[in-house]
Amino acid sequence: MTDIAHLGPIELLTPKPAETLDFFHQLMGMEIEGEENGSVYLRGWGDYQRYSLKLTESPSSGLGYAGLRAWSPEALERRVAAIEARGLGEGWYDGARGRGPSYRFRDPDGHRFELYYEVDRYEAPEHLRPVVRNQPQRYIPRGCAVSRFDHLNVLANDVRANREFAQEALDYRLYERIELDDGSEAGAWLSATIAAHELIYTQDHHRRSGRLHHLAFWVDTREECLRAGDIFVDAGIEIEFAPSRHAVARGFFVYVIEPGGNRIEVTNGGYLVYDPDHPTVTWTQAERGRGQYWGNPTVETFHTYGTPPVEGDEH
Amino acid sequence: MTDIAHLGPIELLTPKPAETLDFFHQLMGMEIEGEENGSVYLRGWGDYQRYSLKLTESPSSGLGYAGLRAWSPEALERRVAAIEARGLGEGWYDGARGRGPSYRFRDPDGHRFELYYEVDRYEAPEHLRPVVRNQPQRYIPRGCAVSRFDHLNVLANDVRANREFAQEALDYRLYERIELDDGSEAGAWLSATIAAHELIYTQDHHRRSGRLHHLAFWVDTREECLRAGDIFVDAGIEIEFAPSRHAVARGFFVYVIEPGGNRIEVTNGGYLVYDPDHPTVTWTQAERGRGQYWGNPTVETFHTYGTPPVEGDEH
Amino acid sequence: MTDIAHLGPIELLTPKPAETLDFFHQLMGMEIEGEENGSVYLRGWGDYQRYSLKLTESPSSGLGYAGLRAWSPEALERRVAAIEARGLGEGWYDGARGRGPSYRFRDPDGHRFELYYEVDRYEAPEHLRPVVRNQPQRYIPRGCAVSRFDHLNVLANDVRANREFAQEALDYRLYERIELDDGSEAGAWLSATIAAHELIYTQDHHRRSGRLHHLAFWVDTREECLRAGDIFVDAGIEIEFAPSRHAVARGFFVYVIEPGGNRIEVTNGGYLVYDPDHPTVTWTQAERGRGQYWGNPTVETFHTYGTPPVEGDEH
Amino acid sequence: MTDIAHLGPIELLTPKPAETLDFFHQLMGMEIEGEENGSVYLRGWGDYQRYSLKLTESPSSGLGYAGLRAWSPEALERRVAAIEARGLGEGWYDGARGRGPSYRFRDPDGHRFELYYEVDRYEAPEHLRPVVRNQPQRYIPRGCAVSRFDHLNVLANDVRANREFAQEALDYRLYERIELDDGSEAGAWLSATIAAHELIYTQDHHRRSGRLHHLAFWVDTREECLRAGDIFVDAGIEIEFAPSRHAVARGFFVYVIEPGGNRIEVTNGGYLVYDPDHPTVTWTQAERGRGQYWGNPTVETFHTYGTPPVEGDEH
Repeated sequence: MTDIAHLGPIELLTPKPAETLDFFHQLMGMEIEGEENGSVYLRGWGDYQRYSLKLTESPSSGLGYAGLRAWSPEALERRVAAIEARGLGEGWYDGARGRGPSYRFRDPDGHRFELYYEVDRYEAPEHLRPVVRNQPQRYIPRGCAVSRFDHLNVLANDVRANREFAQEALDYRLYERIELDDGSEAGAWLSATIAAHELIYTQDHHRRSGRLHHLAFWVDTREECLRAGDIFVDAGIEIEFAPSRHAVARGFFVYVIEPGGNRIEVTNGGYLVYDPDHPTVTWTQAERGRGQYWGNPTVETFHTYGTPPVEGDEH
Repeated sequence: MTDIAHLGPIELLTPKPAETLDFFHQLMGMEIEGEENGSVYLRGWGDYQRYSLKLTESPSSGLGYAGLRAWSPEALERRVAAIEARGLGEGWYDGARGRGPSYRFRDPDGHRFELYYEVDRYEAPEHLRPVVRNQPQRYIPRGCAVSRFDHLNVLANDVRANREFAQEALDYRLYERIELDDGSEAGAWLSATIAAHELIYTQDHHRRSGRLHHLAFWVDTREECLRAGDIFVDAGIEIEFAPSRHAVARGFFVYVIEPGGNRIEVTNGGYLVYDPDHPTVTWTQAERGRGQYWGNPTVETFHTYGTPPVEGDEH
Repeated sequence: MTDIAHLGPIELLTPKPAETLDFFHQLMGMEIEGEENGSVYLRGWGDYQRYSLKLTESPSSGLGYAGLRAWSPEALERRVAAIEARGLGEGWYDGARGRGPSYRFRDPDGHRFELYYEVDRYEAPEHLRPVVRNQPQRYIPRGCAVSRFDHLNVLANDVRANREFAQEALDYRLYERIELDDGSEAGAWLSATIAAHELIYTQDHHRRSGRLHHLAFWVDTREECLRAGDIFVDAGIEIEFAPSRHAVARGFFVYVIEPGGNRIEVTNGGYLVYDPDHPTVTWTQAERGRGQYWGNPTVETFHTYGTPPVEGDEH
Repeated sequence: MTDIAHLGPIELLTPKPAETLDFFHQLMGMEIEGEENGSVYLRGWGDYQRYSLKLTESPSSGLGYAGLRAWSPEALERRVAAIEARGLGEGWYDGARGRGPSYRFRDPDGHRFELYYEVDRYEAPEHLRPVVRNQPQRYIPRGCAVSRFDHLNVLANDVRANREFAQEALDYRLYERIELDDGSEAGAWLSATIAAHELIYTQDHHRRSGRLHHLAFWVDTREECLRAGDIFVDAGIEIEFAPSRHAVARGFFVYVIEPGGNRIEVTNGGYLVYDPDHPTVTWTQAERGRGQYWGNPTVETFHTYGTPPVEGDEH
């Protein structure tokens, strides 16, 4: 039970805004909720907020900021105090589309976050009104038709320090981690709910800071991850990591590089953590070396590439 | 091993051509191959011919004609002779889009067929060219994205007579049938290949002739039949028979009524008949009364409704 | 964020203990964790506790008790105080297999619950040790191979009173409910987490008390619900409600009657509630009359049958 | 339209008969139809013949023989004459379990075949009798529960010569092939029906003869291929090629090495060839280099390993 309700919306930066928008609208199948100041706001049919993704043109790719909704006004206050105590706060901001005041801060690695509580719930216009009323929006069968934003994976120079910040200042729970033979932490899977992962930190191979590994969007079946693979092939999108199953968190995935250069995942699966005292699962270097769930190897660039890209590190 | 390669294309009649076209293009996800003399020609991404469906405006719904491709020029000759010997032939015709001379005939119940051998193979234009060259066309993720025409079910006043005609004059094989306690035949599942059914005759409840029960289009997984159900709900299309599994032929299905009134199926599953001497499976009235594969009841209108509709028999 | 971690284990009563055990072991694919005092303890491969199901012989079918794990020792104290304040407590008990002291109570309708915090985590024996260490147990491909207990649906004479008790005394959240035209409440879907439902109250058609509607066990894909249907057909198990999709909670299901007479569900799907202020979805009588997700009708006995059964109400 | 009905049964050789039997019975989920002269005969629930697999102890792994059922007595005679004309016949044999006289021959690469027409159709004993009568046997939910034998891939020193033999002497149709830049043929996919492949020849990397690449067994959904991957991981079976999708023939797969050393596939998908004049799809060396359907690389040993194994070529 934590003070955080969930991550999102996410601002994603792209040097190719038209192509990136086309990717999310036509291929991921998201709806355009609106445009404002040059940014485009998109949503999955299952997102309860007005939008879960904000696309912004930028000289380079990468993460703009990650929204973070607090569980309650009191939870918001507690988290702001905890962040300020660590000297990472940047103050309040009140102009974000569709939500109330947001508290801006950076994690130790420099990724920008915006913490808020008040938010608009989505009201579907007539042509997107669903038949069943427990669904925020009509299901639109275009492209992958992703349901909603699912999780964020950022790279960090010091995974342990950022993971501890997420636990202590942000009240996240730690479900899984990888500890290498030299004692360093290669990855940490954190969650504010019973979902197996919501915020992930993995080691930045190039020792840069503030970089993005990937954004993941949810589909309701793993069949839809396979179908996403088929869609991307015929649409000419680069599949970096073909549909398969992770050992860590046991999620099903397909990873592509969207036209702006960011790594995007279509995901399903994983498991729910009902144990309130879930002992963190720590994977050893040898276990990580075994590869993915079925023993297949991890694609090399998956360990090195991030956005903004480092010169010479091609995906 | 028969003289028939396969059924198709199918001409479908509709009193609401614009809405019916929208259904097949937007919701079934078929491509428009062309328009000619007021008819629209459509194809699934997996159809090897230029089109598998021809939509034609008409005062009423129902079947225009069913195309039938012969296995070879010699097979075509043999079948024409067999049809002529039964006095059901109507002569040659040479104006069909994308194929050579067709021999027109009617089955004993009056359904129109066009038998041919020469045909154009589909050549995808640049924007529909697939990445893998064993696929006729790029996969377009719009709506159900059906792959190809699969099978045709027509109603008949005398199932046995029509089934025997299909076996003897058309060289079809009979894989399954239903025989009622009074000795009458309620349904017959015929195929020219190892697929479990391609041409189906079932009893016309209203004793009319020449009517259509349904056209079925193939998807590669039964998950896509479930997803088709979801798509149709939010698109406001009437689902007559929710996704489930047949006992006969063991196929997975969802049946809807397209805006023009015709019953359309999205299907997957079934089985392949590798036995050259496959003994026909005969179901009794009691077995049919057990319902579908999982024992669930058959929707009432499924036994009565056909197109063109009979006054007072609503779907 | 609630004081309850999750429901379970569940004690299920059966007049045919050998057949019921065979059903859960061979067909549901659960492991026998142990036997004690004539009861048998079973688990799914994904259950983190030692067992999630206790089978006990009894003259009739129905619910023995529902376990309820508190989030923490403090949460346990708070809930006990709230229950005692309502006069529904029955005192502490310390003999349950694999867990610490339990507080026994009944909901207003008379269903027995056991609330506890301390519990043994499952330690797989050698032959059941998994390859990936974030999985509690090896996956055993026998029968449906259900992963874990998912949710409990009990019948109540007064749904509203029991639902309010669950919210106020047990700290559950209410995600969906059905309100009939006469103002009465026909069903309430409650959860202690982001899962769409964990505890469900629906109207007892026969105005009895303390009865069970069904227990649901989770599988990771809706394909496995379809496969469960196939398994049950060939195993001669009565399928009451063939695989389909609910409108309420949008879950995928198949319902069977186990040999002891209790209704059991194999389930997947639904949605996650990330909104901390999720507005309860209230369905009207007309909306409920629309049927299931795809518009298909609800099986009649689903509204009437419960265990222990009422004379003359056959499933 | 060919003279061959289908491939099978297959005799598989194993140096570890008990472990191999356990693999096929417990993990593949096949039934033991009988034992005779030290060999064990197995079947999938969907096989119409009594058995599709014969396991025989041998000093090494590999193919014993491949059965081949002719379409008719006349077809059998025609094929025997064509084989004899090429000097590859070895004469008639009349002792095979459950079938009539078989004509033994070898393909140019030395693989043994047994061609026959007369065969026993499977009659399920009481405990394996299915509920739906169009299914040869009850579905038993044990392990992968494969339905039936699907296809055979053998290695050849000279793919072209063997492929031409299959077309000319055996009457197979050629649907796809790979032609390298030097003009040599790296693989050929042949079929006697509309199924995309039944008999495959691929280049023997070690220039040996008579070796086996793999046997494939069918499951009805690609979800079951994924599940097979999960089953094999926890059963400690070596997965050589994790679940994915081929570009050639577009089939879904998972490949494992059974305890006796033979490569076994669990498969679904592919496509049906309705075109009687299907133009052979020829893949270039560059296209083959693109990898599998989603662009993922082919596992190295997949190109080199076969049985019996060559010293130093480990899987």
